[in-house]
Amino acid sequence: MTVAKAYAALSATTGLEPITIDRREPGANDVEIDIEFCGLCHSDVHSVRGEWGNQHWPLSPGHEIVGTVSRVGDQVSKFKVGDSVGVGCMVDSCRECDSCRDGFEQYCEVGMVGTYGAPDPRNGNVVTQGGYSSSVVVDENYVLSIPEGLDKAAAAPLLCAGITTYSPLRYFDVEAGDAVGVVGLGGLGHMAVKLAKAMGAEVTVFTTSPAKAEAAQALGADKVVVSKDAEQMKAARTSLNLIVDTVAAEHNINDYLKTLKRDGAIVQLGLPEHAMPPVDPGQLIRRRLAYGGSMIGGIEETQEMLDFCAEHGIVSDIEMVDGEGLNAAYDRMVAGDVKYRFVLDTATL
Amino acid sequence: MTVAKAYAALSATTGLEPITIDRREPGANDVEIDIEFCGLCHSDVHSVRGEWGNQHWPLSPGHEIVGTVSRVGDQVSKFKVGDSVGVGCMVDSCRECDSCRDGFEQYCEVGMVGTYGAPDPRNGNVVTQGGYSSSVVVDENYVLSIPEGLDKAAAAPLLCAGITTYSPLRYFDVEAGDAVGVVGLGGLGHMAVKLAKAMGAEVTVFTTSPAKAEAAQALGADKVVVSKDAEQMKAARTSLNLIVDTVAAEHNINDYLKTLKRDGAIVQLGLPEHAMPPVDPGQLIRRRLAYGGSMIGGIEETQEMLDFCAEHGIVSDIEMVDGEGLNAAYDRMVAGDVKYRFVLDTATL
Repeated sequence: MTVAKAYAALSATTGLEPITIDRREPGANDVEIDIEFCGLCHSDVHSVRGEWGNQHWPLSPGHEIVGTVSRVGDQVSKFKVGDSVGVGCMVDSCRECDSCRDGFEQYCEVGMVGTYGAPDPRNGNVVTQGGYSSSVVVDENYVLSIPEGLDKAAAAPLLCAGITTYSPLRYFDVEAGDAVGVVGLGGLGHMAVKLAKAMGAEVTVFTTSPAKAEAAQALGADKVVVSKDAEQMKAARTSLNLIVDTVAAEHNINDYLKTLKRDGAIVQLGLPEHAMPPVDPGQLIRRRLAYGGSMIGGIEETQEMLDFCAEHGIVSDIEMVDGEGLNAAYDRMVAGDVKYRFVLDTATL
Repeated sequence: MTVAKAYAALSATTGLEPITIDRREPGANDVEIDIEFCGLCHSDVHSVRGEWGNQHWPLSPGHEIVGTVSRVGDQVSKFKVGDSVGVGCMVDSCRECDSCRDGFEQYCEVGMVGTYGAPDPRNGNVVTQGGYSSSVVVDENYVLSIPEGLDKAAAAPLLCAGITTYSPLRYFDVEAGDAVGVVGLGGLGHMAVKLAKAMGAEVTVFTTSPAKAEAAQALGADKVVVSKDAEQMKAARTSLNLIVDTVAAEHNINDYLKTLKRDGAIVQLGLPEHAMPPVDPGQLIRRRLAYGGSMIGGIEETQEMLDFCAEHGIVSDIEMVDGEGLNAAYDRMVAGDVKYRFVLDTATL
């Protein structure tokens, strides 16, 4: 065992505080990572505050991990000590179902092993602890290589926010000439704008806040539509091939369906807590539209995304936070007050 | 002008009765068709009974038309007198928008010209009259060739029920090895079973009525699931690639989403009058599912479907009806009491 520093919640009501956690000795196929940075995802807030049901306490969250390899097991072939590496939302999966074999481990039919808060069957069902920590040990098959040239702190959010938006853009074959809409301009939305632009698409950002127009354009958006403005929504009708919907609050997608061209689709990435208004099947039928969903991405695809980001010079826009600032950062995330992702500097733990 | 015999409704409350209607002289690009058979579609009932809003009266419905060419305009190149031909749900469209140019005239961005009840811009905005009639005149670009070997009466429903189910099966690339579900076993559903089987799929029919199990198997279904039986629905979980949903009454699609494998889709073909229950985005996200719609099919695709049906010996299961029997047939359609499509013999008008 190694003792690692971490910030963790001891219950749903006590917030994050410094503790120590045990990390296993690297097994034959394991990579031990000296964590340098970890992005703060909304999932972390929901988990730490018990909003997604009770958790195993203490809980140290974080699944946007970047660091340096410090030790490797004797069967490890993909990584060596000193490599820049990352870990995303999962640290294992069954490896045998169709989804795992097809490279879609996030849809593992047995269930992926989350990077935090999940019993880990191949490691004695010890509950995983995440990246708000000084180190972590992960099977090499679930570790990503961080390409040279990417700022390591700003690359951390690519491991969740980046792949969650990249995967559906690729699944729907976004390319030059396509018109892509992005609903919501937060951690996921700002990555969707950058990635869709790099794929050659014309990008329209939908936001409820007129004040975000300038920020959207600064990220590369070609158009901004204030979704509460009926005239602007009307002007945007039948203009888009794909909409990436990053909003996790309840909202009416029928308004957005109207902005799709024939064969267009809306992909829901954020999971609202309560039921959404009913979808209008008439709209789906009359222009052969689809309403779909997508969840993070597979390991191979995550590596492809990191390489794509390195090639196009894409990272997240971030604000650094230290261990003591985590609870305040959570409050600001809930208020939507961050452009666009907090990243924890683990040197401050 | 030619005077044609027809059955038409004079109002939303009076049912169908014999009248005469005027048909234009064939223009340079027109084909005059001696109608032999016309299928009865649920849309006809909704229109004749004013359930889809007020109509131009008198209204002679029918958009599953099969007959023989009796005259052609001097610019007509595709058809000659004596050819077996068909007409489906549309008789014109703008021919200039992206959808028309792409061969998806059914999604014409100006609006297709329906085979009945629609002002016809290229013909003085005269309101179109459908196939419950002895003849019709249609631009050759919207006329289909009925391949030899297809029973002409039983081929009539292919022009709407056939193409409406063929088009989404093709759009989702159904092929051998795929598992396809069909919700509802009526005019559309029974065609979906036959077509999906001919494409090589394993077909599961969902029905609310255990009594329909034998009939579904007779049509070629591999499995029948009684959708009200929770155990049967549970046993069907994550088994299907695509579901063709032909039910036009409100129903909860979340139960069907559970039966889809990763990357599966439900395609809604029937348009319910009232809002459906909300779609659960969590299901869409966790297995990358989609809920979509589809509407009839384009002209080129309809010809492809007819040729496919000839190649595979597929027609509709029909019950013949004469002019005097139309109103009683409508009542039986509303009661679901037909296997699976009524076809009007226009010799009885």
